[in-house]
Amino acid sequence: MERWVYFFGEGDTKDKMLLGGKGANLGEMKKIGLPVPAGFTITTKACNEYYGNNKNWPPGLKEQVMENLKRLEHESGKKFGDPSDPLLVSVRSGAPISMPGMMDTILNLGLNDSSVKGLAKQTANERFAYDSYRRFIQMFGNVVLGIKHELFEEVLDSYKKGRNDTDLSSDELKRVVESYKELIKKETGKEFPQDAMEQLFMAINAVFESWNNKRAITYRKLNKIPDDLGTAVNVQQMVFGNMGWDSGTGVGFTRNPSTGENKLYGEYLLNAQGEDVVAGIRTPKEIEKLKEDMPKVYEELVRIRDILEKHFKDMQDFEFTIERGKLYILQTRNGKRTAQAAVKIAVDMVKEGLISKEEAIMRIEPEHLKQLLHERIDPNAKLNIIAKGLAASPGAASGIVVFDADEAVRLVEQESMDVILVRTETSPEDIHGMAVAKGILTSRGGMTSHAAVVARGMGKCAVVGCESIKIDEKAKRMRIGEIEIKEGEWLTIDGTTGNVILGKVKTIEPSLAGEFKELMEWADSIRRLGIRTNADTPKDAKVARDFGAEGIGLCRTEHMFFEEDRLPIMQSMILSRTKKEREKHLDKLLPIQKKDFIEIFRVMKGLPVTIRLLDPPLHEFLPNYEELLLEIEGMKMMNEDVEKIREKEKMLARVKELREMNPMLGHRGCRLGITFPEIYEMQVKAIIGAACELAKEGVEVKPEIMVPLVSDAEELRILKEIIDSTASNVMEEYGVKVKYSVGTMIEIPRAALTAGEIAKHAAFFSFGTNDLTQMTFAFSRDDAEEKFLNVYIRKKILGSDPFVTIDRDGVGRLMKIAIQEGKKARRELKLGICGEHGGDPQTIEFCNSIGLDYVSCSPYRVPVARLTAAQAVIKQEGVKNG
Amino acid sequence: MERWVYFFGEGDTKDKMLLGGKGANLGEMKKIGLPVPAGFTITTKACNEYYGNNKNWPPGLKEQVMENLKRLEHESGKKFGDPSDPLLVSVRSGAPISMPGMMDTILNLGLNDSSVKGLAKQTANERFAYDSYRRFIQMFGNVVLGIKHELFEEVLDSYKKGRNDTDLSSDELKRVVESYKELIKKETGKEFPQDAMEQLFMAINAVFESWNNKRAITYRKLNKIPDDLGTAVNVQQMVFGNMGWDSGTGVGFTRNPSTGENKLYGEYLLNAQGEDVVAGIRTPKEIEKLKEDMPKVYEELVRIRDILEKHFKDMQDFEFTIERGKLYILQTRNGKRTAQAAVKIAVDMVKEGLISKEEAIMRIEPEHLKQLLHERIDPNAKLNIIAKGLAASPGAASGIVVFDADEAVRLVEQESMDVILVRTETSPEDIHGMAVAKGILTSRGGMTSHAAVVARGMGKCAVVGCESIKIDEKAKRMRIGEIEIKEGEWLTIDGTTGNVILGKVKTIEPSLAGEFKELMEWADSIRRLGIRTNADTPKDAKVARDFGAEGIGLCRTEHMFFEEDRLPIMQSMILSRTKKEREKHLDKLLPIQKKDFIEIFRVMKGLPVTIRLLDPPLHEFLPNYEELLLEIEGMKMMNEDVEKIREKEKMLARVKELREMNPMLGHRGCRLGITFPEIYEMQVKAIIGAACELAKEGVEVKPEIMVPLVSDAEELRILKEIIDSTASNVMEEYGVKVKYSVGTMIEIPRAALTAGEIAKHAAFFSFGTNDLTQMTFAFSRDDAEEKFLNVYIRKKILGSDPFVTIDRDGVGRLMKIAIQEGKKARRELKLGICGEHGGDPQTIEFCNSIGLDYVSCSPYRVPVARLTAAQAVIKQEGVKNG
Repeated sequence: MERWVYFFGEGDTKDKMLLGGKGANLGEMKKIGLPVPAGFTITTKACNEYYGNNKNWPPGLKEQVMENLKRLEHESGKKFGDPSDPLLVSVRSGAPISMPGMMDTILNLGLNDSSVKGLAKQTANERFAYDSYRRFIQMFGNVVLGIKHELFEEVLDSYKKGRNDTDLSSDELKRVVESYKELIKKETGKEFPQDAMEQLFMAINAVFESWNNKRAITYRKLNKIPDDLGTAVNVQQMVFGNMGWDSGTGVGFTRNPSTGENKLYGEYLLNAQGEDVVAGIRTPKEIEKLKEDMPKVYEELVRIRDILEKHFKDMQDFEFTIERGKLYILQTRNGKRTAQAAVKIAVDMVKEGLISKEEAIMRIEPEHLKQLLHERIDPNAKLNIIAKGLAASPGAASGIVVFDADEAVRLVEQESMDVILVRTETSPEDIHGMAVAKGILTSRGGMTSHAAVVARGMGKCAVVGCESIKIDEKAKRMRIGEIEIKEGEWLTIDGTTGNVILGKVKTIEPSLAGEFKELMEWADSIRRLGIRTNADTPKDAKVARDFGAEGIGLCRTEHMFFEEDRLPIMQSMILSRTKKEREKHLDKLLPIQKKDFIEIFRVMKGLPVTIRLLDPPLHEFLPNYEELLLEIEGMKMMNEDVEKIREKEKMLARVKELREMNPMLGHRGCRLGITFPEIYEMQVKAIIGAACELAKEGVEVKPEIMVPLVSDAEELRILKEIIDSTASNVMEEYGVKVKYSVGTMIEIPRAALTAGEIAKHAAFFSFGTNDLTQMTFAFSRDDAEEKFLNVYIRKKILGSDPFVTIDRDGVGRLMKIAIQEGKKARRELKLGICGEHGGDPQTIEFCNSIGLDYVSCSPYRVPVARLTAAQAVIKQEGVKNG
Repeated sequence: MERWVYFFGEGDTKDKMLLGGKGANLGEMKKIGLPVPAGFTITTKACNEYYGNNKNWPPGLKEQVMENLKRLEHESGKKFGDPSDPLLVSVRSGAPISMPGMMDTILNLGLNDSSVKGLAKQTANERFAYDSYRRFIQMFGNVVLGIKHELFEEVLDSYKKGRNDTDLSSDELKRVVESYKELIKKETGKEFPQDAMEQLFMAINAVFESWNNKRAITYRKLNKIPDDLGTAVNVQQMVFGNMGWDSGTGVGFTRNPSTGENKLYGEYLLNAQGEDVVAGIRTPKEIEKLKEDMPKVYEELVRIRDILEKHFKDMQDFEFTIERGKLYILQTRNGKRTAQAAVKIAVDMVKEGLISKEEAIMRIEPEHLKQLLHERIDPNAKLNIIAKGLAASPGAASGIVVFDADEAVRLVEQESMDVILVRTETSPEDIHGMAVAKGILTSRGGMTSHAAVVARGMGKCAVVGCESIKIDEKAKRMRIGEIEIKEGEWLTIDGTTGNVILGKVKTIEPSLAGEFKELMEWADSIRRLGIRTNADTPKDAKVARDFGAEGIGLCRTEHMFFEEDRLPIMQSMILSRTKKEREKHLDKLLPIQKKDFIEIFRVMKGLPVTIRLLDPPLHEFLPNYEELLLEIEGMKMMNEDVEKIREKEKMLARVKELREMNPMLGHRGCRLGITFPEIYEMQVKAIIGAACELAKEGVEVKPEIMVPLVSDAEELRILKEIIDSTASNVMEEYGVKVKYSVGTMIEIPRAALTAGEIAKHAAFFSFGTNDLTQMTFAFSRDDAEEKFLNVYIRKKILGSDPFVTIDRDGVGRLMKIAIQEGKKARRELKLGICGEHGGDPQTIEFCNSIGLDYVSCSPYRVPVARLTAAQAVIKQEGVKNG
């Protein structure tokens, strides 16, 4: 006969799948001698049998429930349904994976018209007894019989007449009970069941049923919990914290969940039930006070805290009840904590010998770390939150509102103001303003919009797509509902939560020392993946190095050309008709670009720097076609100078010539290198020239020149020839030799599919998974999100956003092909990833498993990546227990 | 000792790689007893050794040349360099693969100051002897010594003084010889070599060298001939057709190369050398006449023709010379022929038992067939060719010039005129004009421009990208250089050659009966691949069926919505804000679309019709954003009606909302089906409704509903559910059951990579290789060609245009993955290709090899595909000899 029921103590935490989290932990606590009210658990398997068997109980379940109930009666010395001293029980759900509040609970079960009298006599508290009965009928009516909660409340209100619950006398409560029973009769056509056994069976069924209530199904879908786990049912003797001033109830944490301090933490209320603590009618006391109220109980609590910690080896969040001076532990589970506490607790526990370093590392949720790296809102500050947008880039900042990038630069540079740049959306022309702003706020765009991507790259906080804000950039003001904010007024944004807060708010600086540093060092000693960063500026490079980056995996060179002093030269170059003319303008860019590299190389001294040659289509550097078109139209209408118009028309003609139907699939990347080799030649001169100058100073430089958008080995072969011959000329000029290598992005499906050929000419592959995802899915990142990708994610057509977490089946498969065949052609091929996926934990785990050498991510993701890379190794190799 | 030299007859056609084409065929002819002047061949290997050995002859070559020269002297009874009766030889190149005119030849070698006298005496023709000597020195000076041709011509001109060559007396020729020798002395510093042996060795070296002259290298590059084949050198006794009226020379074809008629064909000149026939100074006579001039020689020629045909089993193109009544065959090779002749000869030869059906099929160049399917210019017509563009769509047509689609429709419908639509470029708005025009001419755009693609789809001739034409559409005229053509004037275009011809020209209708039909039937009996067509209209479907299509592999439904009566409804649908509103407009489209399908189904009765649900992004149906923008700007300037402007602005807003950065990767295909299911529902109602109506009439219909742009199995699962439930509702309504299937395009890399999952929901895969190529390469077809793809092809970065011939390494590999994994998931999965590649011979061969069930191509490619599919099987299985 299958065993469907386990008495507490017969199972333990290893039986979590069978007994649910709560049942298993109750069993475990019982086993280790903690004062848990007795009870038993009906297995998840019984629940599944119930569903598999047309909602009938499997054979034997009823008998086993009866048997265990007998044992419970025996242990408690009370009898179920007994009119003089009734055993009361709670019936609670308990799934293998916690689904807080999603399923049902019935308390005080076992009360009926006669046992309520026994309870009153036993507790010498009639009011308590009838209040319990009233609550039970209401809960049972709602949960088991499906009667709307509001109907009971209406009845209760008719008695309360504006008073509180607690003001009802026991006589009034008796009448409420009668009215409740009438309500049930009216709604269900049946009497409220007086038989305790019947109550129990019905309650168990109700808990089974609650596994498939709508909110539970939704919760499982959202949290990717399988539907076939089922829930266990825990039947436990009731204990009461509201039996007088020698009773009470509370919540304890074995350590401080905010700071991680290693000390009992919690709060309690005397003469109260658990729900009173939650409801907040009375203010609970700090647990320290219990030392005075009930010294023995406090002592016992401290003892239990130690047992819990030693036993569960993690910070526990437990509930307790004191019934007439006797302490009961009702539940324990691993406690939620702040990021700061998580790190401190994990590191402390290693030092205390409770857990291993590997376990400590596994305890930290990587995404959580972000909280530690950025300035954050002071938790004690009062906030006037006026809007909420997408939390696009973490951190918090206060500053005065500016609507224009140039004005932002002026205010910061000339008036030393802190500014928040507010734009409908940002474009490359706003970069200089974004660079000086404390934070960025936009009313349009998603998590991958320009503002979001650039802000994350800059490690700057940003809230984007905050649609409730109406911005009038010309009038220099914005409006959120009734509130109008003008340029110069103070605003605070929180890029970790998406909150937009009126006025200036105190923020707290991050600290990267202490336990954080220690944990990171352990992670470094375990991880196999190198961690690099995507950085285009010396500043970003510096931040990333401080966060532990071991090199630059992607230094984009195009951003350098968008700067104010360079864009006009770049535009002249593009407008040139001949190679010679182009070379003339490129010669002007050369020293500027060389300086860029010298600065970055200096910061990254001794570490590899992967520089991607020019990638975007040339028209990105020219004005927008439509704006130009309208401008010219306007100039003509106004009869402006013909020469000026002609100049603009020349520009328009070139823009028209260069623009493309599908720029993503267009004339960019190494296709520019093939058609305009002089551009790449200039860039190589700048890179190798910079390296040579530093080499002369004795600074070690490791440039890795990366060719973007290769689709065929022949492209790379030709360009590598150009790069090598240019480099050798430059080195000859300087009279020094520097080591450099040439590799390629793998960002086009065909590059992955022909990687064996490409590897013949490449010292390294760097997976450009942003573009690779675009091509593999045929998703244009610029368009997809709002047009259909959001629908795809909502409808679960895709499990996750493929621009955030790598798509293993498609993109990942191409990566695996490229790695296998690339390595076959060249054993020492270096492998990395430089798409934005490089900072995503699931992707990092994947990268570890397929054998990449490093991941590269934005500076602020570096610590997340370091931790995740260690976790990936531990997951692969298993945790060593402490 | 390696054998470097073969006397004619020691090798034969199987030694082509070693002896070159010419040498091998001369040997073969000698072997079968034809009267070939004796000689020997120096192997291609010797040539390669020459290059590999620093331009020195390999050991033994000199000795073997001397030995074979001895044998030649023995067989001819003459002595090389002999002053009384000298042996004269020609020295000619002969590569394994024919490179006509690319390499060098020296004739009359062996003449010197004394042997010329012997020749004069022997032939009793001093003028002939000195003319030969003069020609030899000139040829030798130019080819061997590298002296410019013009310098010799100058000398000659100084003697001719305005007369013809033939007017020079033998004394004058003697003086020319002296002057030529002086010229050589002056240019080279050395005397003209008098030693015949020295002449020979120098000439052999010159032929070796000519393998690597610039034009030969270019030719090899263009024709993908490997550089390491080398050339053979043929040294052959000279015979002379100009020794008097008992001598002559000519060219023969064993069958008529224009018509294929099985009869000796050719022309000759008496008392002439080969170059005289080519030079065209005298008009050659038809070979029939030789019967009268030299009956015995004619008889001999007919006999030889029979031997050649029986032996080579293909139509031969041979050269002959008659020296003093004796016939010599100098060369033979497979003759070039018209498509018509090729088909007739191949079929006749099967019937004559010369070759097998398989050989006949292999004899036809598939691309050649196109000539037979289209109207063509009468070869006898006189043409005034005024421009040349890209031959975008084959066929020829005359008509009056029209510059506007509406006007084209008016002229055709109301005045029954034949028109040629001339546009700078075409867009979907010109479709109705293109449909009625006889031909299309554009001044812009490449082989994949809108005009080219649509014209090919319509089977209509088109010349595109004819840049020398300046079109003034407003003024209704065009200009080509000096010539101006106004609307209404006659013009002829030839889409097979790209010619644009002034005026009306006679054309010839194609015939698909007779030998053509027979050949096609043989091909059908051999091929394994099914051949379907891409057709969107009943007319196209009809054409394709007539050409032998076995179904429609791609019926695009979007073209149907571009028609004048439908576009406004479509636009209203797109502008709708609610599903309900959209459905209202879709309801209007439903009966129209249903009628489309009824007509197509009727034509394709009993054959499968694959209908692709709506694919393009919705903005393609709306006006162009910029045009609209300017229009509104204009309306405002002109103070037009506010309501009208508001209406336009509404449209503009929607266009802006819908337009995308990268429409190719955008909101289209099944993404529309997911986000606006009502569109696909309407289409399915139309398809199944049409099928039901016809089923009631007893017409057999086989609709295959194809979902485009699937990237994940889940998309197809959801849409298949919608399709199936819609279909079942429709069938219930009609009270009939029709069979239909649901499948998908594989046109996104991820679809190929996850084909195993997708196949679970798909009855068929159709490879959309146009898009698959775009995504796999990240090439936007709209932009790539003129921006960089032309450079890539010119620089040989890509071996061929991947939009024409499938890229086997990338795209092809994805196809193989999809097939393997798709078939594994569903054994009976049907596989086809519907990209434009489906009509390309190399692609068809590939499709055959990877196991597709069918290819689908434009109607006019169907015969090409039928033939190529048969050739693919034959290549795979080997030819059975006839």
